[in-house]
Amino acid sequence: MIEYRNLRIALLGAGSVGAQVATLLLEQSDELAARVGAGLELVGIAVREIDAPRSAPIPKELLTTDALTLIQGADIVIELMGGLEPARSYILAAINSGADVVTGNKALIAAHGPELLDAAEQVGAQIYYEAAVAGAIPIIRPLRESLAGDRVKRILGIVNGTTNYILDKMDVEGDSFESALAAATALGYAEADPTADIEGYDAAQKAAILARLAFHTEVPVEAVHREGITKITAAEVRQAQKTGYVVKLLAICERLTDPLTGEEGVSARVYPALVSRLHPLAAVHGAKNAVFVEAEAAGDLMFYGAGAGGRETASAVLGDLVSAARRHVAGGPGVAESTHANLPIMPIDSVVTKYQITLEVSDAPGVLSGIAGLFSGHGVSVEAVQQSISSAGVAQGVSRTNEASGTATLVIVTHEATERDLSRTVADLAGQPSVVRVESVLRVEGA
Amino acid sequence: MIEYRNLRIALLGAGSVGAQVATLLLEQSDELAARVGAGLELVGIAVREIDAPRSAPIPKELLTTDALTLIQGADIVIELMGGLEPARSYILAAINSGADVVTGNKALIAAHGPELLDAAEQVGAQIYYEAAVAGAIPIIRPLRESLAGDRVKRILGIVNGTTNYILDKMDVEGDSFESALAAATALGYAEADPTADIEGYDAAQKAAILARLAFHTEVPVEAVHREGITKITAAEVRQAQKTGYVVKLLAICERLTDPLTGEEGVSARVYPALVSRLHPLAAVHGAKNAVFVEAEAAGDLMFYGAGAGGRETASAVLGDLVSAARRHVAGGPGVAESTHANLPIMPIDSVVTKYQITLEVSDAPGVLSGIAGLFSGHGVSVEAVQQSISSAGVAQGVSRTNEASGTATLVIVTHEATERDLSRTVADLAGQPSVVRVESVLRVEGA
Repeated sequence: MIEYRNLRIALLGAGSVGAQVATLLLEQSDELAARVGAGLELVGIAVREIDAPRSAPIPKELLTTDALTLIQGADIVIELMGGLEPARSYILAAINSGADVVTGNKALIAAHGPELLDAAEQVGAQIYYEAAVAGAIPIIRPLRESLAGDRVKRILGIVNGTTNYILDKMDVEGDSFESALAAATALGYAEADPTADIEGYDAAQKAAILARLAFHTEVPVEAVHREGITKITAAEVRQAQKTGYVVKLLAICERLTDPLTGEEGVSARVYPALVSRLHPLAAVHGAKNAVFVEAEAAGDLMFYGAGAGGRETASAVLGDLVSAARRHVAGGPGVAESTHANLPIMPIDSVVTKYQITLEVSDAPGVLSGIAGLFSGHGVSVEAVQQSISSAGVAQGVSRTNEASGTATLVIVTHEATERDLSRTVADLAGQPSVVRVESVLRVEGA
Repeated sequence: MIEYRNLRIALLGAGSVGAQVATLLLEQSDELAARVGAGLELVGIAVREIDAPRSAPIPKELLTTDALTLIQGADIVIELMGGLEPARSYILAAINSGADVVTGNKALIAAHGPELLDAAEQVGAQIYYEAAVAGAIPIIRPLRESLAGDRVKRILGIVNGTTNYILDKMDVEGDSFESALAAATALGYAEADPTADIEGYDAAQKAAILARLAFHTEVPVEAVHREGITKITAAEVRQAQKTGYVVKLLAICERLTDPLTGEEGVSARVYPALVSRLHPLAAVHGAKNAVFVEAEAAGDLMFYGAGAGGRETASAVLGDLVSAARRHVAGGPGVAESTHANLPIMPIDSVVTKYQITLEVSDAPGVLSGIAGLFSGHGVSVEAVQQSISSAGVAQGVSRTNEASGTATLVIVTHEATERDLSRTVADLAGQPSVVRVESVLRVEGA
């Protein structure tokens, strides 16, 4: 048996991921030591309450409530507490005492990533955060390193498992949003208060992190345009099926040029969008995550896997831990990260995409040509119009006008247009006497 | 404009990948310098013939036929010549002159990887080879680093674009192997001599590299069990469709325990196999590649993208170049790689999987029970038997016995069994008077 010098590992937090990290570290210590060239000694686990119930058995003698003392004696600190404070202060303390840091805290990295990375760079420490985005899926390292010689054009990410589970269930089983959410809650995919997931806050944090890495540009999470999935209806999902689409909540990071102003910048946004069923993202079912990257030279890449789960996310944490430990053993710096490009963050108005607009209109002569004229008046070109199923017709699965009310349903798919032009078009449509109701406006992504 | 000190980059080879690397290096020099913190100066390109035609325009003054002199003056050497020699000697020369090396040479890494990595380790140099497996798809770095704290159980890879194009065309368009191969040749996916692709040699080299990384074990390419796709028939592909499968050429790397001997080891093998249409690998179409990784903690991951192409592969080369350059600027060691686990390489006989056997049998009473008895006599448990379409029936799309010959076609799917037991079963079947012909034996993977 080879004897290695030990690296002292401090763990902050023993929730679902932390408890698994502790278990794997203890179980696989020989194997990890062989890979690193040094033992990884878990010297303590800081928790709020020593006696709280844990999702995996943890030796009680490792637990402490004194995080700062634990941090002072560590070579590497793993932060899995979540939240902004005290996680931020603890990480700064770790960096300033000469430790490297591994964290899975997306909220913190999204909000304070540049501050923490700068602090680390000043003292030659490293912060690893593979677990912060898309759980077990390696996406931070490929963006930081594998694609470092390429230019990312766009990222389309399914980065929230809860909402993907809900939308997939609506798609596969025809559930309403409410019933799919209830199922997600029953299975533990959704928390008691599901706001962070269903309103897209969680995905927006991940979008901010991905955009910063992909475009070497600081992207504050407040600059991420965000729409949740609570307004997605069973009728929209059915309509999408008929036109060969599926509704997915996408985190989109994109280089773009505003066609009006010519300004170049980046966009980070989260919203439910229509994705062609032929797109690889359409095959991402249940609570799985996937990140689809379009790069100039590499072309299209996709990274697929478990986006959450204690054990799965622990794998990403341990991968980072091994990287940090190897660096500690061998000395020398880690991977540089910078926001040197510093591109402007573009508002949603500048975004160019395709749209599907569903309208309930009076079923009278001339209505269609009037509406088509209104689109072109705003510079929005129409790709396809379909007189589709009215609300009454949906239940019967037939396409017809709604004879009772004398209305018809129009489904209009546009060519690419700016949000600016499209939102003016929709506002204008809503004011037309022939338009009874704008039923749905969805963006079409992934073309 | 910031001034950086320059790193001297030597490129060996100006084929389809090399020419793109040169072009991208020259085009993006400012951006790359900002990311690295140093200029990347392409000081020369070693080629065999100065005047050979190139797939991208290259400044002629950079070309030289004197590779060794070029190497001596370089900080980083990019080897994209392919083949074993003189590539191996040049890389050793580069390492010994203190340079880091980036290569896309899968044959060389599969055959001499451990030798080259050892030589590099002795002088503190690094060898990067992301481009050697699956082109633009980041898979080496995720295995080396992201999954370094996890335990890989199995890898199922579609790592050869030519054969995936052929099998996909057979599946989607019903082509014969010959006609699909002709189409692949016409499109430039297959070379004039397609042996390396269609007989699985290329995939076997990649399997050897992936298995070494995943299991920290030396896996000589000769130890990879290899079967090509030349015997796959249109009838087999059609039969697969009927039973919910698709035929894919898989590179499989697996930890396994021989059920007979109890020996633990790893298996690396390449063969065409049936994959469920519900498996993410089934959605990998055309010449795309994907690597599906099953890890103990991370669960299932998939990495998808372009497996070949000059520009796409150049992206992987440049990602490695940026990593090498950052290391050069900042000093310190790179990623360690070792074969410390040194597990035994298991023969194909020890492999456990499911099988689909298609038999033409006499259509007489008692035949089925005799055949079922023969399977169980060899310890192979049958999951499903289907009296299926005879050769005559296929054309008519109906399932019936072949009345003219008095034979029937049986499709038998087994539970998991060892290759040892299965091959004895098949040999025995072939000798039975009631068995007219063993039409097809295919493994079922990805369950």
